Amino acid sequence: MGIEAYNSLTTNDSMKRRTFIKQSTFTAMSLALLGANQSHGKSMVEGKTLQVNGSRIESRIMELAQFGKDQKGRGYRVAYTKGDVEGRAWFLGLMKKAGLETTIDAGGNMIGKRKGKNHSLKPIAFGSHIDMVPDGGNYDGTLGSISALEVIDVLNERSLVTNHPLEVIIFANEEGGLIGSKAIAGQLTSEGLKQVSQSGLIMAEGIKAIGGDPDNIQSCMRKKGDIHAFLELHIEQGGILEAENLQIGVVEGIVGISDYEVTVEGVANHAGTTPMKLRQDALLASSKLIIAVNDVINSMPGNQVGTIGKITALPGAYNVVPGLVTLGLEIRDLSAEKIEQLFGEIQKRAAIIAKDSKTRISFKREASEVKPALTDKQLQQQIEASAKALGLSTKFMQSGAGHDSQQMAMIAPVAMIFVPSVGGISHSPKEFTKVVDMTNGANVLLNTLLTLDRG
Amino acid sequence: MGIEAYNSLTTNDSMKRRTFIKQSTFTAMSLALLGANQSHGKSMVEGKTLQVNGSRIESRIMELAQFGKDQKGRGYRVAYTKGDVEGRAWFLGLMKKAGLETTIDAGGNMIGKRKGKNHSLKPIAFGSHIDMVPDGGNYDGTLGSISALEVIDVLNERSLVTNHPLEVIIFANEEGGLIGSKAIAGQLTSEGLKQVSQSGLIMAEGIKAIGGDPDNIQSCMRKKGDIHAFLELHIEQGGILEAENLQIGVVEGIVGISDYEVTVEGVANHAGTTPMKLRQDALLASSKLIIAVNDVINSMPGNQVGTIGKITALPGAYNVVPGLVTLGLEIRDLSAEKIEQLFGEIQKRAAIIAKDSKTRISFKREASEVKPALTDKQLQQQIEASAKALGLSTKFMQSGAGHDSQQMAMIAPVAMIFVPSVGGISHSPKEFTKVVDMTNGANVLLNTLLTLDRG
Repeated sequence: MGIEAYNSLTTNDSMKRRTFIKQSTFTAMSLALLGANQSHGKSMVEGKTLQVNGSRIESRIMELAQFGKDQKGRGYRVAYTKGDVEGRAWFLGLMKKAGLETTIDAGGNMIGKRKGKNHSLKPIAFGSHIDMVPDGGNYDGTLGSISALEVIDVLNERSLVTNHPLEVIIFANEEGGLIGSKAIAGQLTSEGLKQVSQSGLIMAEGIKAIGGDPDNIQSCMRKKGDIHAFLELHIEQGGILEAENLQIGVVEGIVGISDYEVTVEGVANHAGTTPMKLRQDALLASSKLIIAVNDVINSMPGNQVGTIGKITALPGAYNVVPGLVTLGLEIRDLSAEKIEQLFGEIQKRAAIIAKDSKTRISFKREASEVKPALTDKQLQQQIEASAKALGLSTKFMQSGAGHDSQQMAMIAPVAMIFVPSVGGISHSPKEFTKVVDMTNGANVLLNTLLTLDRG
Repeated sequence: MGIEAYNSLTTNDSMKRRTFIKQSTFTAMSLALLGANQSHGKSMVEGKTLQVNGSRIESRIMELAQFGKDQKGRGYRVAYTKGDVEGRAWFLGLMKKAGLETTIDAGGNMIGKRKGKNHSLKPIAFGSHIDMVPDGGNYDGTLGSISALEVIDVLNERSLVTNHPLEVIIFANEEGGLIGSKAIAGQLTSEGLKQVSQSGLIMAEGIKAIGGDPDNIQSCMRKKGDIHAFLELHIEQGGILEAENLQIGVVEGIVGISDYEVTVEGVANHAGTTPMKLRQDALLASSKLIIAVNDVINSMPGNQVGTIGKITALPGAYNVVPGLVTLGLEIRDLSAEKIEQLFGEIQKRAAIIAKDSKTRISFKREASEVKPALTDKQLQQQIEASAKALGLSTKFMQSGAGHDSQQMAMIAPVAMIFVPSVGGISHSPKEFTKVVDMTNGANVLLNTLLTLDRG
C-alpha cells in the first residue's frame, strides 16, 4: 500500500489505516504528506517526491498469481508450461498498454523499450522474472517484474521522459538455471540448451514454446557496454532484514556457489557381530565431517554459508554398519578466494577424520559451480541515497540466492534492491512480502533509476 | 579335514598335509594320534576319541552350495524359492540315507529322528538351517546342518545308539525371520504368516511350497520339556575368534535387539539465504546424535553394540538446509536391562542436542524387537569341557546375530558352538570358514552331545 492508496482510504478503512501506520515508515509518510525536504530530495520532480502506486503493484501481484496452477491448485507457473505462457501473455499485454515497444528475444526474454531524450545514451535496463518453482510463492521475481512495469506507468502518468532509453527485461526461466539471462550474457551453451527443464521439455524446446529462437540464440547476446546499467528489485528470500527490522537491502553482490559430492568409504558389516572397536563406520565418520564443516564455516568472520543438504548411506538397514556414504556439500560466499580457503580447511579436517575412523573421504567438485557476482559500488550508493531520501532504513548485504543480475553483471554494472520476506520464507506458498515493503522497494527502484538517469 | 582324513592322506597329498598341520591344533592332533589321555577323555568310545569326517563335511558343504543360484551365478538359496526346494530335497535324501525317520512339520522344518536306548527320555535335538540371504555365503546355517548329519553318520559308522532319542532339525526360512523355529516355539502368529517373504511369496504360501501346512501351524509346536536340549553349531559371523586366534566360541546367549525409528525435525530453508546462526538444521543435529549414540555405547564396559544404519534427510538437495531427518537406531545386548539403560542415556543426550539445535528429536520403538536369549549354563560347561578334551582353545562370547536357537530357548535348554569366520565376513559370497575349523566345531558338537547323553 502506497501513500496514494493511504490517502484514498475512507473512514470504513480505519482498520487498514491502523495497520498501514504500524507497518509503514512514519518518516517516509511524513516526508510525502507534509511535503518536507521537497527541495533537497534528489528524486523530486516538479517539487514533489515521485512515488509508485502500491495498491496497483499489489493488485497485479495477485492477478499474476492466478496464472499457472497444478491440479491441487498450488502455484505452478514453471517456465515453458501453460501457466508460464499465459502469465507472460498477460504481462506482455500490460507492457504494450504502457506504450513499450515489445519484443521476445531469441532466449525467450520479454523486452519492453521506452525511448529516452538522448539517443546516443545506452539504455538503463531493469526487471526480473515471472516463472516460479513448483509449489512456489507469489513474490519471488514477480515483485521486480511488476515494479518495473510500475516505474514505466508512473513515468507515463507524469509524462516524464528520461535521458537514457529504458528497457524492461522479463527474463525467461530464471528458476531453471538463469536460462534467459545466460542467453543475454552469452553463457547459454549448446549443451545447456539440451538439458531437460522442470517442464519436461528440453531447454531449446521450452524456449521455442515461449516464442524464442534457440537456433539463433546468439542473436540475443548483449556486449559489454551495450547496457548502461541493470537494476533488479527482489524479495530477500532470507530473514535478515525482518530480523533486524530494516526496510531496504543494498545488495553488495550475489554469492558464488561451489558444490562438492563427498564420498565416505568405510566397511559395511553386520551390526550385531561387529564389535564397536572393529568398525569402519562410514556414517559415524560422515557425522564428524558434517560437524567439522559447520565448525569451519563458523570459524571465520563474514557471511559465508556451508551446508550438507544431501546424504545417502548404504546399504541402509537397521542391522548393517554403513559402508558407503555420499554427501552433498555446498559453500557460498561473495569471494571465490574465501570459498577456496574454506574448502581447503574442510579437506584438512576430512583427512584427520578419515585417518581416525579408518575410512576414505574424497571430494568431487560439481560442474554446476557459480562464480560470485559483485554489484556496482556507485549504484549501491545511489540505492542507499534514494532509500535515505525516502526515509527508509538500509543494510548492505549479500544475496545468498542466485539471480539474473549475476549473469547481467558480466556485461553491465548491476545493482539489486532487497525488501523483507516475512519469516525469511521463499520458494514456498508461504512466501510473503507486505505491501508496504513492496511499495518501499518499488519507490527505491524508481528513484534510483531517476538519479542514475541524471548521471 | 579331520584326523581320519589326515591318516588317509597319501604321499601325493603332502601339500594338503602341510596345510593341515599348519591350520590344525597340534595339541589335538597329538592327543588323537598318540592316544594320549584316552582313558580320561569324556567322549571316548571303546578307548578311542570319536571324531567326525572333516572332508565329508567339506564335500557336502560344496555340494549343497550348487543348489540355488541367481541369473548371475550368485548364491540365491532363499527360503521358499526353487533353489531352497531343491537343496532341501537333496538334504532330505541324505537324512533318509542315514536311516533317520524324516518328516516335514507344519512350519516346513525338516525333522530327522533316530531312536535311543531309553524311550522314556526326551530327545536331544540339534541342527540349523540351509536357506540363505540373497548373494549370501556357503557356511551360515549349512555348517550346523551338515555337521548334524555328520554326527548321525559317525554314530551309524560306529553302530552307536545313544540313551536319548536324537532329532536333527533343519529349520525353514531362518534368514526371513526365524520362521520355522518360531513355529516350533509357538511364536509364529497369523499376522506373521501374512508377511511377504524375500521369495515374493507370503509366508503361508512359502511354507506350503516346501511341504509345510500353514493352516495347522500349531501342530508343530513343542511344549517346554518336550525336548531335552537343543544344540547348534554355527560360524561366528564376526571376527572375534579369528582376531584372538581362538578355535571354539562357547555362546553365552543371543543378544536382544531393539530397533528405534528416530525423527529429527528442524526447519528446511534456503541454503544460500539462511545465515548459519538462524538455521535449525536437522542433519547437523542428527550428526551430533550419531556421535552421541557411539559415545553412550562405548561408555559402559561389555559387548553391547549400537548402530545407526539408516538415514534419510529431506528435502535432500544441495541448496536446502535439511528440515527432516529419519534415522534407524539399533541396540543389541545380552541384557534387556542394559539395552534399556543405554537407550535411556541416548534419550538424555538427544534432549540436550534437540534443545541446543532448536530441533525436535523423537524415538519410536519398532515392533520387531527381539528379546535376549540366554543359553544353558551347564551346556556351556559341557561344550567347554569337550573342546578342552579335544585340545581346542575356547572363548565365552555372545552371539550378535540372531539364530533359531533363540526361539528354541523358549521351550528347551539350548547351547551354541561358534567357529571362526575368516575376516569376520558373513552374508556375503566372501563368507569362509576353514575346513579345520569346521571339523573342530563338528567334533565339539559330537562330543558335547555324547556327554549330554550320558547325563
